[in-house]
Amino acid sequence: MLDVLAGIGRTRTGGYRRDAWSPAELELREWFCQEADARALTRYEDRNGNLWAWWGDPAERPGVVTGSHLDSVREGGAFDGPLGVVSAFHAVDRLRRDGFQPARPLGVVCFTDEEGARFGVPCVGSRLLTGALTPERARGLTDEAGVTLAEAMRAQGRDPLSLGLDKPTLRQVAVFVELHVEQGRALRGPVGVASAIWPHGRWRFDFHGTADHAGTTALADRDDPMLRYAQAVLAARAAAERLGVVATFGKVQVVPNNANAVPSLVSAWLDARGAREEEVRRLVAELSEGPEVVCESWTPEVTFAPELRDHLATVAGAALDGGAAQILPTGAGHDAGILASAGVPSAMLFVRNPTGVSHSPAEFAEPADCLAGVTALTAVLADLCGGRT
Amino acid sequence: MLDVLAGIGRTRTGGYRRDAWSPAELELREWFCQEADARALTRYEDRNGNLWAWWGDPAERPGVVTGSHLDSVREGGAFDGPLGVVSAFHAVDRLRRDGFQPARPLGVVCFTDEEGARFGVPCVGSRLLTGALTPERARGLTDEAGVTLAEAMRAQGRDPLSLGLDKPTLRQVAVFVELHVEQGRALRGPVGVASAIWPHGRWRFDFHGTADHAGTTALADRDDPMLRYAQAVLAARAAAERLGVVATFGKVQVVPNNANAVPSLVSAWLDARGAREEEVRRLVAELSEGPEVVCESWTPEVTFAPELRDHLATVAGAALDGGAAQILPTGAGHDAGILASAGVPSAMLFVRNPTGVSHSPAEFAEPADCLAGVTALTAVLADLCGGRT
Repeated sequence: MLDVLAGIGRTRTGGYRRDAWSPAELELREWFCQEADARALTRYEDRNGNLWAWWGDPAERPGVVTGSHLDSVREGGAFDGPLGVVSAFHAVDRLRRDGFQPARPLGVVCFTDEEGARFGVPCVGSRLLTGALTPERARGLTDEAGVTLAEAMRAQGRDPLSLGLDKPTLRQVAVFVELHVEQGRALRGPVGVASAIWPHGRWRFDFHGTADHAGTTALADRDDPMLRYAQAVLAARAAAERLGVVATFGKVQVVPNNANAVPSLVSAWLDARGAREEEVRRLVAELSEGPEVVCESWTPEVTFAPELRDHLATVAGAALDGGAAQILPTGAGHDAGILASAGVPSAMLFVRNPTGVSHSPAEFAEPADCLAGVTALTAVLADLCGGRT
Repeated sequence: MLDVLAGIGRTRTGGYRRDAWSPAELELREWFCQEADARALTRYEDRNGNLWAWWGDPAERPGVVTGSHLDSVREGGAFDGPLGVVSAFHAVDRLRRDGFQPARPLGVVCFTDEEGARFGVPCVGSRLLTGALTPERARGLTDEAGVTLAEAMRAQGRDPLSLGLDKPTLRQVAVFVELHVEQGRALRGPVGVASAIWPHGRWRFDFHGTADHAGTTALADRDDPMLRYAQAVLAARAAAERLGVVATFGKVQVVPNNANAVPSLVSAWLDARGAREEEVRRLVAELSEGPEVVCESWTPEVTFAPELRDHLATVAGAALDGGAAQILPTGAGHDAGILASAGVPSAMLFVRNPTGVSHSPAEFAEPADCLAGVTALTAVLADLCGGRT
């Protein structure tokens, strides 16, 4: 199934660009609906644009939900997101092939705009669903072209006024399990289980200066914000090493961005994460002297429910080689983290990433490990749903 | 007249965006044609998109030409370019008001795409005219949207196959005088005369790295090109101070430019200039270890003809307060420099810039100084044309 998706939103570099509410993402949504229909699952799009496909009726009894997202970072890889959705459909197929009759409904979900590539805030779909993001703020989020999320949704026939906390949909989810490709090299076996998501945040740094002619303005007369930005990049790396966290300036916008003009403004986005909030906060505070700093998102540490986590590690491990699956934290944010923070019992399965490369066209997982992921997910869903073969 | 232009291509910040072959620039071209027609000047657009308006027939005898350009840098000011064109028309009006009969034809020119804001190479119109830029290279120049100069011209009904060295047009220019707002604070009186244009160039630096997830990739595992770019920014400033030149990184493009991804590529443009080529070259060489460096443009020092320069300083000064006008070099490139390099006797008049700010919405010249510029230009043109009142 991942092969079918391979051509959608692909760029000339071999990477992907699957922005929320872009033509490529709409094609992926259409694919989701077709897969759901082919399995006679009951599907609908919720008020926030998340797609749900149910085996059984969750209105009668809350069910077990699995899935992930289909959007991508820009120039992202093929696995981050789609692997979890494709594996969910494969798990449904395996359960049916085995004649499994779930005692609880089983749902497949595709959350919208997990990466925040276009509008800047990640996990928009799950944050709106759980009330962690207000509909007012969501509607006003703006892409580089000045298009708001509200306008982008309206252009695709959605009603942005319907956005917001969706308790009826949330109530249908008794437990959520997200399968995802691992994004570092910490996982040794084919499949692992998440212990926690590091606290992480995104800050916009605005370095203001004075626009000037690059040829005629003496160095001493300049107020060049590029110099202060460069110092901040190096200071962030040094502070991250000292404090034992990670920090990245991966996005920059320069005004006016002329080769022959000293900039008037350099805006740069800092992504910072670590095992403990204290060190992350300290790094940002150290860098905040001088520029104008706005926190665009902050997600406290998420610890997945330990009993569920340990249980799933045992079930997943038993379905593979017998021993319990490895339990490990991650530095990446996920919809499962948003749901866990909202009180939904949640867990994550990771599939090994041999190179650790992610958010890159070179992102990769071995086919055998992906199949092991489906095997583990199938066992976990059967266990959580209860039922009989 | 500058007031009439004030609204064209203006952005929300009060700055200007007048890209070559954009709707704003076409409106400015239309304005030029109307002003020429209102004065019954014989106008035409040459093969390279430069606009000419003649008083008298330069086919009979080469004439004296004045003018400048109407395009702007992005977020540029109101004076850089338009002041020279507006002053040219005012000078024609003054000469006619005084009943002047020029012995040689007098032309007003508007060179196209002087700033290179859209296609990256400055002085495209004058470089093509003089053969300093090949038509093949010009046609292939590409803007950020991937549109080539050839496509942009074709979209406006021009034939890009006609681009290139235009000897008949060039032969009509016996001498060229460009009036321009000064772009530093070196000019003390209202009007000065240019001695030289510093050697200057533009280089693209490509820092290659490995795209990775900003949260899950350990610092030690990263190959982050943003760090090397930041080091280059600070190294450029230090080298410029040491070598007595100016160096600017004013334009940056990051791939993929995601807040949550280590970049795979940081491309940055270095603008470097100085009184002597040797120091400029040394600075670029020092910075070139590591990144992939491509020279996008290089202009050797231009020394304006000393006799013409000294003569015009006397004539301009006499028209104002009596003493010779100040003679000074500039770090900015101009079409007059391109023509001078092609062997056309050329000179420049500068109008005082009280703040020295240029390539910025805050660019400014006092009205009284602008009028002094017209007075000086009128005297210079009368002197060069010869003739009688």
